[in-house]
Formats: sequence, C-alpha cells, structure tokens
Amino acid sequence: MKIKLTFLFISLFTVLSINANENEWRKLDPNNAILMTLPHGKVVIELAPQFAPNHVEQFKTLTKNGHYDGNKFYRVIDGFVAQGGPEDGSAKDKATSSLKIEGDFATDENFSFTLVQENDLFAEQTGFKDGFALGHNLSEKKAWMLHCPGIIAMARGNEPDSGTSHFYITNGQAPRYLDRIMTVFGRVVYGMNHVQAITRTSVIAGDKPVNKKDFTPMISMQLMSDLPKEQQIQLEIKNTEHSSYAKKLVDRKKRENAFFYKKPPPVLDICQTPVGVRIVK
Amino acid sequence: MKIKLTFLFISLFTVLSINANENEWRKLDPNNAILMTLPHGKVVIELAPQFAPNHVEQFKTLTKNGHYDGNKFYRVIDGFVAQGGPEDGSAKDKATSSLKIEGDFATDENFSFTLVQENDLFAEQTGFKDGFALGHNLSEKKAWMLHCPGIIAMARGNEPDSGTSHFYITNGQAPRYLDRIMTVFGRVVYGMNHVQAITRTSVIAGDKPVNKKDFTPMISMQLMSDLPKEQQIQLEIKNTEHSSYAKKLVDRKKRENAFFYKKPPPVLDICQTPVGVRIVK
Repeated sequence: MKIKLTFLFISLFTVLSINANENEWRKLDPNNAILMTLPHGKVVIELAPQFAPNHVEQFKTLTKNGHYDGNKFYRVIDGFVAQGGPEDGSAKDKATSSLKIEGDFATDENFSFTLVQENDLFAEQTGFKDGFALGHNLSEKKAWMLHCPGIIAMARGNEPDSGTSHFYITNGQAPRYLDRIMTVFGRVVYGMNHVQAITRTSVIAGDKPVNKKDFTPMISMQLMSDLPKEQQIQLEIKNTEHSSYAKKLVDRKKRENAFFYKKPPPVLDICQTPVGVRIVK
Repeated sequence: MKIKLTFLFISLFTVLSINANENEWRKLDPNNAILMTLPHGKVVIELAPQFAPNHVEQFKTLTKNGHYDGNKFYRVIDGFVAQGGPEDGSAKDKATSSLKIEGDFATDENFSFTLVQENDLFAEQTGFKDGFALGHNLSEKKAWMLHCPGIIAMARGNEPDSGTSHFYITNGQAPRYLDRIMTVFGRVVYGMNHVQAITRTSVIAGDKPVNKKDFTPMISMQLMSDLPKEQQIQLEIKNTEHSSYAKKLVDRKKRENAFFYKKPPPVLDICQTPVGVRIVK
C-alpha cells in the first residue's frame, strides 16, 4: 500500500510540474506585482520572492503602509539608475529597519534554469528562471539576479546589510559590476518607457541644474492585489521554462532571417534578450 | 645638414603628437556635430567621419538641405531603437541615393586604440578611439563601431547597401548582434535623456495603440557650425587617448571604493563605460 501511495504522489507531482510549464504564457500574480503610478504613466513591477524573500516582504509591507506614496526620484542619472525613497531624515526614513543583503543564493545539483549563454563576461552561465535573468557560477554553486535594464534593487550605504527602503531602477546599459553586491528583488514588466521619462536630477558640468521641485514623484505605489479588479493591469508573461522559449533562444542565436546577410557571432547577451509581455482583459 | 633637418622634423612631429593628446578634454568640432531639436529638448550628435566617411558625408549634406526637418520618429521600440526618416514614398524619401555599407574597416600594425577589454562576448578586443567604442578582431584585422546605447546608425533593407537617410538611435541594452552588419556613424554626446523621452510607437499586445499624429517629430536637424555661435552648444569630451583616461579604466576595473565590500570580476563592458562630456561657455 505504501508503494502505491508514493507512486500516486509522484504521478501527481509530475502532472503538476507539467502543468506549471505547459503554457507558453503565465499570468502575473497580482499578489506579487506592484503598480507604481507616476505623473506621466503607470509602471508594473514583478517581485521575485523566490530569490530575495526578505527584501520582497519588506517592500510589500512598506508599499501597503503607504511608505512610498509621494516619495521622489532624487538621484536619476541617465544611462544608469533612477533612485527614489523617502526624504532623508524624515520620520518615514527613520522608521524602516535595515535588511541583510540577498545578493546571491546557493544552488545544488537540482538547480535548473533556461540556459542563455556560457562564459558571459561576468558569469560562468546566464539563464532565465521564472522570467528573471540570472547568473550562475557552477564552480561556486551560486546564482544571482542580474542588473539588466529595468530591474529594481535596494540601495545601500557602504555596509552590505544597510539597505532599508530606498531603491533604484536601472535605466541604461546593464551595470553588471553591481551583480551580487546589491539585492535585486524584481523587474519592470510594463511601462519601462515611463521609467525612462523620469526627470534626470544629475546633469553634466556646465548644464542648468535641476530644481528639487521638478523631481519626479511616485504618486502612489500599490500592491496590485489590493486594487479593485477593474483598476488592475492584468499581464501575461512568456513562460521562460516552456520548451518554446528555449527554442526561441536557439533561433535568436542562429539569426536565420534574411536581414542577416552576414551572421553575427552565435552568442546572446541575456540583458538584450526579450521576455514577452502582453495585456489581458 | 640633412640629418639636422630630419632631426628637427622628428622633434616637431613628436611635439605635435604630444600636443594632440596632452589635454584631458578635447573640444567637439562644430563642423562634425549635429544639433537635433526635439519638441522636448536638444540633442547633440558627434559624427565619426574617420570610421564611416560616406555615411557622414551624406548625412551632413542631407542635414544641410533640410531633409530631416519635420521628419517623424515612426519606429520607436523601448529598450531597442528610435528610428526616424522621411515619410515612405515622399519626394524627400525618393530623392536620396543608397550607400555602400561601412560596417567595419581594415586595420594594420599601426592601428591603436585605448584597450578596454579582451575577450568581450562579441569581439576579441574592445576599446575607445576618439571617444567612440570600437570592437577589434586582430585575427581578421578588422575594427568596427559598436552598437552601444546612444549610437546613430543608418537603417537599411535586407540588402547590405540599401541604407539612404532613415536612421536609428539605440535606446536600450546594446544590440551588439547588429555590429558590423549596419553602419554606425556617430553617437549622442548630449541630451540622451531627450532621446529616451521620444514617444514609443510600438506597444505590447493588448495595449492602446499610438496614434500617428502623436509620433515625435524632429523639429530641426542642423550642422552645429551652420548656427550662429550663440545658438551653438559648445561641448568638451574626455580625450580617450589621454593617459589619464587609460588610468581611469584600470581604476574602474579595480573598484577600490569602499562601496565594493566584495570586488566584482575585473572586467569592463565598454558600453557601460562612460566617456565624460561637459558644456563650455
């Protein structure tokens, strides 16, 4: 009897894992998504509790408590980051506790992801897991979320465990040198054009400085599941664990389209490899 | 007497070449710079006649003839490119002749640049020359301008030699797979934030389409030297051939700042390596 039960359990597990990967698209979980409203548009962020559980938990709690509503993007550097948070020294700023860094995580022989590239400049391997771009060093048994454009990460001081609530969104070429020494905890899946339109606070020498009153505010930051259904933005994201996605990567390396009269090297920069998103009504 | 003259000549030559590289900053040549006026701000492009002479010549001629004034950015994809040009089938569009591709150029033993990285994912070497990011394959004796964010390149059809006047500016993670099969002929040195604010014409499935009347126009495109001095934007750009710049690259690889409690791999993505710019009055 025991054998049969185990067999049943294994069968069920197999069916469930097939189900999880059977669709080319997966629905964005509204309990794991943030709606950030800017004066000029709406931005949706998917959180990654599977890779940075404590940061996601604190970010969700702060969001629910209205911590970010009215905050400003006070450090915005073109081609690098848009950083925001409560005013320095304000009650909100003082009230948040610091977090232990979640820069990378241990992997074991069961670790798997959809491989994109071996011998990337900064990692032994790159690949997608649950739609997030990861680096993986087999030699260290460590993996981590990459600083691709549009990721959200916690800012910090010089101490690794000093992040609280101030965050940045990358808006230029991936600053991969920050991988593993910052905690990435999600990524923009909708409205990156609006992130790109956040007012730059940093100008080059000789240019007109930007007045603080012109800094872009976050009008509101809300957990998607806290909104009435009709106000939610319902998204579906390409399932990077589906066989069709892996095939797409192979095709992308081959560049068979007639436009490629000469073939580029058969390599992929994961941060330049799209993961499709669509709106569902 | 002959020996003395030669000696004098060599001395003079040495002094001149030291002079060329002696300043940390070089002045942007207004005869080699384009001022693109968008509804929301001004953009300056530095041209690269040393790497793409025929494309630069045609682009300058078209600019002087008012070819681009009033053109629209009709293909704008977030994280990829903002492409613009005359309306399809218009008189302006038909009037331009196609150009032979200038995707890469031959190098010889005298070729030199400020090395940034060996064994980049897409090139044997990367480095800067005259402020432009180049790839170099010693094995092929070929070098080329890289598709870093903010470069300007000529669009084309499937045929390599089919580019005319339609151009794109890259606005996301470097699409390096386009290196060598497109002609890059300059880069944005000022106002990249305004390029980032160009209206996206391409939206994801399910999202509200963008009306053609809302496409961002180029109000004007002018050669900087054709403008009265007081309307010019005078820029200085870091001299990437100066020893101080090479030293900066070494420092950037080392990451000695206290913020780096753990050192990242000592490598540089050239497209994430800044070349400073400042305004001079």
